[in-house]
Amino acid sequence: MAQLIDELFIKHFDNELLRQHNDQALFKLPAGRLAISTDGHVISPLFFPGGDIGSLAVHGTLNDVAMSGAKPLYLAAGFILEEGLPLADLEKIVISMAAAAKGAGTPIVTGDTKVVEHGKGDGVFITTTGVGVVPDSVTISGDRAEPGCAILVSGSIGDHGVAIMASRENLQFQTTIVSDSAALHGLVADLVATAPTALRCLRDPTRGGLATALNELAKQSGVGMVIDEAKIPVRAEVKAACEILGLDPLYVANEGKLVCICDAAAADDLLAAMRRHPLGQDASIIGEVIVDPHGFVQMTTAFGGRRIVDWPVGEQLPRIC
Amino acid sequence: MAQLIDELFIKHFDNELLRQHNDQALFKLPAGRLAISTDGHVISPLFFPGGDIGSLAVHGTLNDVAMSGAKPLYLAAGFILEEGLPLADLEKIVISMAAAAKGAGTPIVTGDTKVVEHGKGDGVFITTTGVGVVPDSVTISGDRAEPGCAILVSGSIGDHGVAIMASRENLQFQTTIVSDSAALHGLVADLVATAPTALRCLRDPTRGGLATALNELAKQSGVGMVIDEAKIPVRAEVKAACEILGLDPLYVANEGKLVCICDAAAADDLLAAMRRHPLGQDASIIGEVIVDPHGFVQMTTAFGGRRIVDWPVGEQLPRIC
Ligand SMILES: Nc1ncnc2c1ncn2[C@@H]1O[C@H](COP(=O)(O)OP(=O)(O)OP(=O)(O)O)[C@@H](O)[C@H]1O
Ligand SMILES: Nc1ncnc2c1ncn2[C@@H]1O[C@H](COP(=O)(O)OP(=O)(O)OP(=O)(O)O)[C@@H](O)[C@H]1O
Ligand SMILES: [Mg+2]
Ligand SMILES: [Mg+2]
Ligand SMILES: [Mg+2]
Ligand SMILES: [Mg+2]
Ligand SMILES: [Mg+2]
Ligand SMILES: [Mg+2]
Repeated sequence: MAQLIDELFIKHFDNELLRQHNDQALFKLPAGRLAISTDGHVISPLFFPGGDIGSLAVHGTLNDVAMSGAKPLYLAAGFILEEGLPLADLEKIVISMAAAAKGAGTPIVTGDTKVVEHGKGDGVFITTTGVGVVPDSVTISGDRAEPGCAILVSGSIGDHGVAIMASRENLQFQTTIVSDSAALHGLVADLVATAPTALRCLRDPTRGGLATALNELAKQSGVGMVIDEAKIPVRAEVKAACEILGLDPLYVANEGKLVCICDAAAADDLLAAMRRHPLGQDASIIGEVIVDPHGFVQMTTAFGGRRIVDWPVGEQLPRIC
Repeated sequence: MAQLIDELFIKHFDNELLRQHNDQALFKLPAGRLAISTDGHVISPLFFPGGDIGSLAVHGTLNDVAMSGAKPLYLAAGFILEEGLPLADLEKIVISMAAAAKGAGTPIVTGDTKVVEHGKGDGVFITTTGVGVVPDSVTISGDRAEPGCAILVSGSIGDHGVAIMASRENLQFQTTIVSDSAALHGLVADLVATAPTALRCLRDPTRGGLATALNELAKQSGVGMVIDEAKIPVRAEVKAACEILGLDPLYVANEGKLVCICDAAAADDLLAAMRRHPLGQDASIIGEVIVDPHGFVQMTTAFGGRRIVDWPVGEQLPRIC
């Protein structure tokens, strides 16, 4: 175990804090409030078009930290390994995870490794926890949406979930659709720089997709929303794959997108800032916040009607992240 | 899923930050360096004499944070649930976890819940991450042991591992041995208050037991150690059970004990401080740090000889925490 930790994890994640081999990592933080978030990752398959469980475990948690407006700073990672997992697979995952952490500027400074018997796990599960610091000028929270606010999405929806489902089902078009798994904190930093006080809510529409994220925000803020189907970016391949798979892209998971609710007056500037960023080129203003005691999310459809975009019903796609 | 989170986790862990339902928890920290640590918990069985996976997941992580001299402040918790886990069992675990967090004054402020298919997990795995703040006066690290320092242990060793093994094997004496699972940060605070600058290393001897913790510290600090077998507290029942189970108590896991290495001049005061604390009543000065380029941990045995207490060989006890 000590050897595995040294020669695999600490070797690839390499940084000064990990090298200390203490029970914890210890560091000075810049001024500001601390943001902390955790996510377990149990995605199947471990390797998928556009990423793997290692990079996903970095992006997923960083994004939840960043959705507060924080600059993510450090990561902790807990691994649960199933006996029989090929060491070569684990090494690929660790290398990918190290690269994602390095790319995001957020070192993995403390970790843990547990092993369970064959048949009591599934290859590897990775739980990551991230911490970051939020500048004092920023107050972003799911309960801050108000009627009149604009609703933006940073790009096309459904890519991650469809990439996973297609690779599971071994569908022909699988190679054309890749997960959008990416770290969004650079994009968030640009938004914060553009209009710090106009930003009200940020959320990454992961499990349950855009529809769930909007319903959560409407509920938290006690408002309604109207979105315009025509404005919601969905790639043609994703739309086609959803038809074959019987999925609604509104409910399909994303791992590199965010929803932003902001003062209407700042919407165009924030949209422009998104579009200047590589991860926001397809950003769009998709609707607005309205008064609604029921907290409904409504959508103007392509045919001109309106329908309610409800909470997801029944089971979600299993092990999509 | 949203319902399970609200009606089980958020209900029992109840606190203002969780109730916000944001992607992350956000709070102001007191001044000082941040300590962060993470541990996955995969213990089997989920319920054992003296605790369960829920309380253990709180204590285990808090203790790693506290071993820096930090006051632990907040916890994050990621759950991986296996389909088919009885809801009543999960609720018992969550209630126990909530009580442990409350007892320690460290609320669970953010969390995550993932579900895997039956046969791809084992009931529940819980990965907790803790953060705390270390006062500026304190510098505790595994690399600070120096020849002449005293080595203390806060109480009897082997209780946790033996309680788990005995309950697995369904041994007769199992009811007399209970896990020592406990949160040690109160004891650590007393040590810090007694002799802040004399404290050099703290470590919780979990997997691999006292022998492993001492070897780790000797290696990190580049020193040797001599301990005295007669001074190491081991309960008679634990000793007897170890004989039956073929275990050496030196290598058996603890979940409520700490090893402390300090300036020799402060050893008696720190010992007295430990003994005044309910979790340190059986504390003992067990040996001293010596010069040794090989980094060996030696033990004076009951028969007057000396033997090397080596790193553990072969496999450790599986799923002991
Ligand atoms: N997968 C990993 N990635 C990075 N660092 C790791 C990993 N696993 C363990 N470590 C690091 O190795 C050291 C030893 O970890 P370990 O989990 O054995 O310590 P512990 O938490 O004190 O023990 P236990 O888990 O038995 O309570 C720590 O410094 C830890 O941060
Ligand atoms: N087991 C749990 N205990 C306490 N709080 C939890 C638990 N599971 C989830 N939560 C809380 O519920 C809210 C929703 O969690 P969820 O994991 O669905 O969000 P997310 O991380 O943004 O989504 P995803 O996990 O799909 O990326 C968050 O505020 C989270 O802190
Ligand atoms: Mg430890
Ligand atoms: Mg998340
Ligand atoms: Mg650990
Ligand atoms: Mg999220
Ligand atoms: Mg630990
Ligand atoms: Mg989550």
